[in-house]
Amino acid sequence: MLKLKQVHIDTHRENVAFLHLNCTAYRADELQAIQKIEVACGPRKILATVNLVGNGQIVAPGEIGLSEQAFHLLGLKDGTEVEIAPAAPPHSLQWVRAKIQGETLSGKAFKEIIADVAAHRYSKMELAAFLVSCAGFMTADEVLSLTRAMAGEGTRLSWSEPLVVDKHCIGGIPGNRTTMVVVPIVAAYGLPIPKTSSRSITSPAGTADTMEVLANVNLGISQMQELVLKERGCLAWGGHMNLAPADDVMISVERPLNIDTPEQMVASILSKKISAGSTHLVIDIPVGPAAKVTSRPDAVRLRKLFEYVGGKLGLVMEVIITDGSQPIGNGIGPVLEARDVMKVLRREPDAPLDLREKSLMLAGMVLDFDPALPGKAGYARAKEILDSGQALASMEAIIDAQGRNLNPPRLGEMSFEVSATRTGVVQTIDCYAISQLAQTAGAPQSPGAGVDLFKKVGDAVKKGEPLYRVYSVFKSDFAFAKEMAKRGSGYVIG
Amino acid sequence: MLKLKQVHIDTHRENVAFLHLNCTAYRADELQAIQKIEVACGPRKILATVNLVGNGQIVAPGEIGLSEQAFHLLGLKDGTEVEIAPAAPPHSLQWVRAKIQGETLSGKAFKEIIADVAAHRYSKMELAAFLVSCAGFMTADEVLSLTRAMAGEGTRLSWSEPLVVDKHCIGGIPGNRTTMVVVPIVAAYGLPIPKTSSRSITSPAGTADTMEVLANVNLGISQMQELVLKERGCLAWGGHMNLAPADDVMISVERPLNIDTPEQMVASILSKKISAGSTHLVIDIPVGPAAKVTSRPDAVRLRKLFEYVGGKLGLVMEVIITDGSQPIGNGIGPVLEARDVMKVLRREPDAPLDLREKSLMLAGMVLDFDPALPGKAGYARAKEILDSGQALASMEAIIDAQGRNLNPPRLGEMSFEVSATRTGVVQTIDCYAISQLAQTAGAPQSPGAGVDLFKKVGDAVKKGEPLYRVYSVFKSDFAFAKEMAKRGSGYVIG
Repeated sequence: MLKLKQVHIDTHRENVAFLHLNCTAYRADELQAIQKIEVACGPRKILATVNLVGNGQIVAPGEIGLSEQAFHLLGLKDGTEVEIAPAAPPHSLQWVRAKIQGETLSGKAFKEIIADVAAHRYSKMELAAFLVSCAGFMTADEVLSLTRAMAGEGTRLSWSEPLVVDKHCIGGIPGNRTTMVVVPIVAAYGLPIPKTSSRSITSPAGTADTMEVLANVNLGISQMQELVLKERGCLAWGGHMNLAPADDVMISVERPLNIDTPEQMVASILSKKISAGSTHLVIDIPVGPAAKVTSRPDAVRLRKLFEYVGGKLGLVMEVIITDGSQPIGNGIGPVLEARDVMKVLRREPDAPLDLREKSLMLAGMVLDFDPALPGKAGYARAKEILDSGQALASMEAIIDAQGRNLNPPRLGEMSFEVSATRTGVVQTIDCYAISQLAQTAGAPQSPGAGVDLFKKVGDAVKKGEPLYRVYSVFKSDFAFAKEMAKRGSGYVIG
Repeated sequence: MLKLKQVHIDTHRENVAFLHLNCTAYRADELQAIQKIEVACGPRKILATVNLVGNGQIVAPGEIGLSEQAFHLLGLKDGTEVEIAPAAPPHSLQWVRAKIQGETLSGKAFKEIIADVAAHRYSKMELAAFLVSCAGFMTADEVLSLTRAMAGEGTRLSWSEPLVVDKHCIGGIPGNRTTMVVVPIVAAYGLPIPKTSSRSITSPAGTADTMEVLANVNLGISQMQELVLKERGCLAWGGHMNLAPADDVMISVERPLNIDTPEQMVASILSKKISAGSTHLVIDIPVGPAAKVTSRPDAVRLRKLFEYVGGKLGLVMEVIITDGSQPIGNGIGPVLEARDVMKVLRREPDAPLDLREKSLMLAGMVLDFDPALPGKAGYARAKEILDSGQALASMEAIIDAQGRNLNPPRLGEMSFEVSATRTGVVQTIDCYAISQLAQTAGAPQSPGAGVDLFKKVGDAVKKGEPLYRVYSVFKSDFAFAKEMAKRGSGYVIG
């Protein structure tokens, strides 16, 4: 029996237990051999990696310290008596070992792995082993099993509606904020679209980051359900919803390792949609030299995988392959992207046409799911809703319902322009380079940081004419961005 | 500038830096995004994972705490002013990502990865990603590159001798302590054999654990070189030698994940031998149903890989496939195995014959490397040296030179026997089951714990006659072992 103690150390989603070298529960030589323990008090139990402490300041010999996350996960009070026991690694690791050895895993194996992952029983090392072994190869049926297992953990929303729609872009294209135009159009039309988005993982802004410029995005499950009942749509951050929680755990390893395989992508996206109770889904796969998918054959393979897994799970899907050769809209970074979205919704004359057109196309595809709408009338209906101002009204209502941001972040006060080094026509814009530049400038941590494009592919440009302007909030970011911009503009002018 | 502080937390070979949430060096929002930092003072620098601390007891806002290992690696005094900067993940991770994506890596890539691994720049998560991606597939040339890269880091011994011999068993067979018989035979013959061994990783005893029953095994490099100069051989623990140090780092991840691929095995073993300056090497691959290698075709493939990589690196090798169907010798666990070894060296009448014979065969193969010895006379010469008592004298000299253990651990005082449930002849002994039982009984943490076999394959046995005796030092281990033994003896009697 040891006394529980909260240790105020944030160990990045990994449960860590701090035990004194002279811990009263185990002999020193036993302790050295123990890597993981189970900490329990009655039915409440967690697994944690052991860190041995030779210092009474952190824990006394009769105490067990838990890192922030582990302490909250266990949910007991400081000073509670808990029992500890050496923990065997999770039973499901046997399947990970089999996968490493090249075996194909059963549905049961994925179910057990994902249950352990969602319960934070895997260390980051074990997560990496699972994810990398899956990155080696996965059959379509394995992706199906993985998706089903991920959707099986956490919250599962149900709506008493025949159609619950959603749209999702696999990402990778800077400025591609179509979601924030599509949702108000669809909501104004009347189909329920309970959209949850992520924050940026490796980009200058996620939809949640951009929406946060305008409104609160931290909605709980019941708040979201109420909102969709009333406004037919929402633009919330998925982080508080506990939808397919294993995905969030895995992202904490996928992100630093840059693992972004088609298989993980399909499982991640579709499990969230199933958990959110969606029935009909439009998926956008942008293809371009610096996009996530770089060739049409790859895009077609990915589409087929989406269709196979989604179909087996009962989702009605429309997967569209779009042009991902350059950024969409002009602004890149939360404040700039929110500006573009609102310009489109407000039908301002300088609203980016590409963002408008792509949003209308996607919204049209979503509306076409409605059996009540005559064949392929979706696009025209979406245009009507946007041009009549109904979409704007819907967006304003959603913003108010979520909680308008009364103190919206402003564009960064430091800025510099990058200009053309020759006269000609813009041939290509390197999405990856522009995205890196926006991040170096401070996006999304500083919502007011980013890049505002003045020229797109096909535009004529004169030598010395500005191609884009970079904004920063902090001096250090500004200096780094300026340095980076010197290495090349990301534009090819021919 | 932050003040360095030693934090007495053992984080298992992972460098961890503890920064206060209100750290004076970075803004809170910046800190949240930083996973890894570089800590530097002049030319001394290390990378560490950041843990944020909300508690002044561990570190103050103007301090940076380092975990035990990180503190020692940096090698600076408490209170030294150090600079910190967000650290990009090691540059070589790009190659790991390429490997995950199925690419074949160049020699340069492996060199960069292993340099970063040896310098502790990889987190356990990153190590797992590297190891699992390699477990997926590796070409023979990749194994060669990996081995060369591993041998290229750390200490490299050189001996002014034409022949420096070694022998190595890939492991997995309980009781297989031939090394401790082979080394004194070869040393008595006069060939230099600077044998370094590991402690147990997943077995009841490593050679270093068993030798430690008799003598000190913690030798430094120069101590070992002196010893080999004088006694021609040694039986040291490799842990203090800094030979192919990347291997030790990788083992800290391979062990919990149970990654033991032929490719990793070849790279691990051969890199250590190259670093130790060996020129001629005998490798023993036991094959059996519960051994590491379970089929002859697998053993042949492994032999070819050893021969290819070793040959390219200039090692003269003899790879032998041996019978790994049952334990070698009678004792399993450090004290019991040391007893068997000494019985063989002392030519006691009840010395295990299989241990004697296998040791003679391997020693003979090592002696056959000597061009001065007539063709295939090695075995007879080895037998002569053993039977004349020269090997025993050599062993006693090595023990004295390393430092005799004056307080040798004794056999556990608690014991129980496991008896035959029927009359017949022993058909098979499950190496894995016996090994697990010996570990549960406390080996190798308790050197006096283990299993002493009375019957081997082919022996006649009567119902109720004891098959083996299990020894424990601690009560809890004893109880666990007794419980485990009830589930089956590991013997098949037919």
